[in-house]
Amino acid sequence: MHLMTHTIRDKKRLLARIRRIRGQAEAVERALESEAGCETVMHLIAGMRGATAGLMAEIVEDHVRTHLVDHHKHPGALNEDAAEQLLDVVRSYLK
Amino acid sequence: MHLMTHTIRDKKRLLARIRRIRGQAEAVERALESEAGCETVMHLIAGMRGATAGLMAEIVEDHVRTHLVDHHKHPGALNEDAAEQLLDVVRSYLK
Amino acid sequence: MHLMTHTIRDKKRLLARIRRIRGQAEAVERALESEAGCETVMHLIAGMRGATAGLMAEIVEDHVRTHLVDHHKHPGALNEDAAEQLLDVVRSYLK
Amino acid sequence: MHLMTHTIRDKKRLLARIRRIRGQAEAVERALESEAGCETVMHLIAGMRGATAGLMAEIVEDHVRTHLVDHHKHPGALNEDAAEQLLDVVRSYLK
Repeated sequence: MHLMTHTIRDKKRLLARIRRIRGQAEAVERALESEAGCETVMHLIAGMRGATAGLMAEIVEDHVRTHLVDHHKHPGALNEDAAEQLLDVVRSYLK
Repeated sequence: MHLMTHTIRDKKRLLARIRRIRGQAEAVERALESEAGCETVMHLIAGMRGATAGLMAEIVEDHVRTHLVDHHKHPGALNEDAAEQLLDVVRSYLK
Repeated sequence: MHLMTHTIRDKKRLLARIRRIRGQAEAVERALESEAGCETVMHLIAGMRGATAGLMAEIVEDHVRTHLVDHHKHPGALNEDAAEQLLDVVRSYLK
Repeated sequence: MHLMTHTIRDKKRLLARIRRIRGQAEAVERALESEAGCETVMHLIAGMRGATAGLMAEIVEDHVRTHLVDHHKHPGALNEDAAEQLLDVVRSYLK
């Protein structure tokens, strides 16, 4: 199991992201409740999707940097360039 | 402006979907709060993303069937086969 | 069956797009043949994917504008605003 | 720079994949040349897109397993479970 040993700052940022997404979900719910136009609903959902992809990209980045290698046991073992190339690809798909 | 003139049944189904997504967002928030493992968080977000894509696919389908043609003014004008082909493509991307 | 009754100009543009994609596929093949680095291969594939999404978006746009309604039989039946809203969503997913 | 030090078998498999994709691009080109229906063209492009995503997923997997850690210098440093969790997420997005 990989505990997310992020700094307090990271945790705050991730929580701010998911709370924004929750707020977007609530806005979609209100739009559906009030029978807003499809255009409105589609835009709200597209925004929620983009925010969700952004959160996933950030979690994946943390995962790659923090958990693929145990930096205490194997300092310097993670190839930073290779990790960055991987994250470039991940980000290009998570848009 | 296109009001979503869905049947009551449609509205209920869409509301059930977005409420499930809101619940998924809350589960992600709780997982981040409690510093659950990345694996857990990534799976929860992946599930939320899939549900969001499913909701979007359903809204797009309603939009295509209901709003591209005013069925009162132009009955029979929407080519059903062409609409179905379009929705096949949309669904293949919204997974 | 829906023949693609595009103008000559459209056809030329679509052919230019798919030929570029074929060229990108050939570049990936050469890179794999010559055992180029993963970074190179991943970038080439990401480019090919983007170009493929762009071609699909263009075909979908043609399909929506040309085939959802038979414009000879039902002139003015396609709601242009609703079509544009649909295409906005499609484009946001085909990136 | 990370040379792709795959086995001969891996290289053959990747080459078979990209050649299939090149063949799919050629089929799209022929379909556009002969003014095949949108439905045909959209299905061919969707197939090409899926195959491209599959190739990317395989390259990313090779990259993660082979290049994130120099296994000669740092044997055992890559956390296999964490790598597998990452690849699960990557595969879910590369469909």
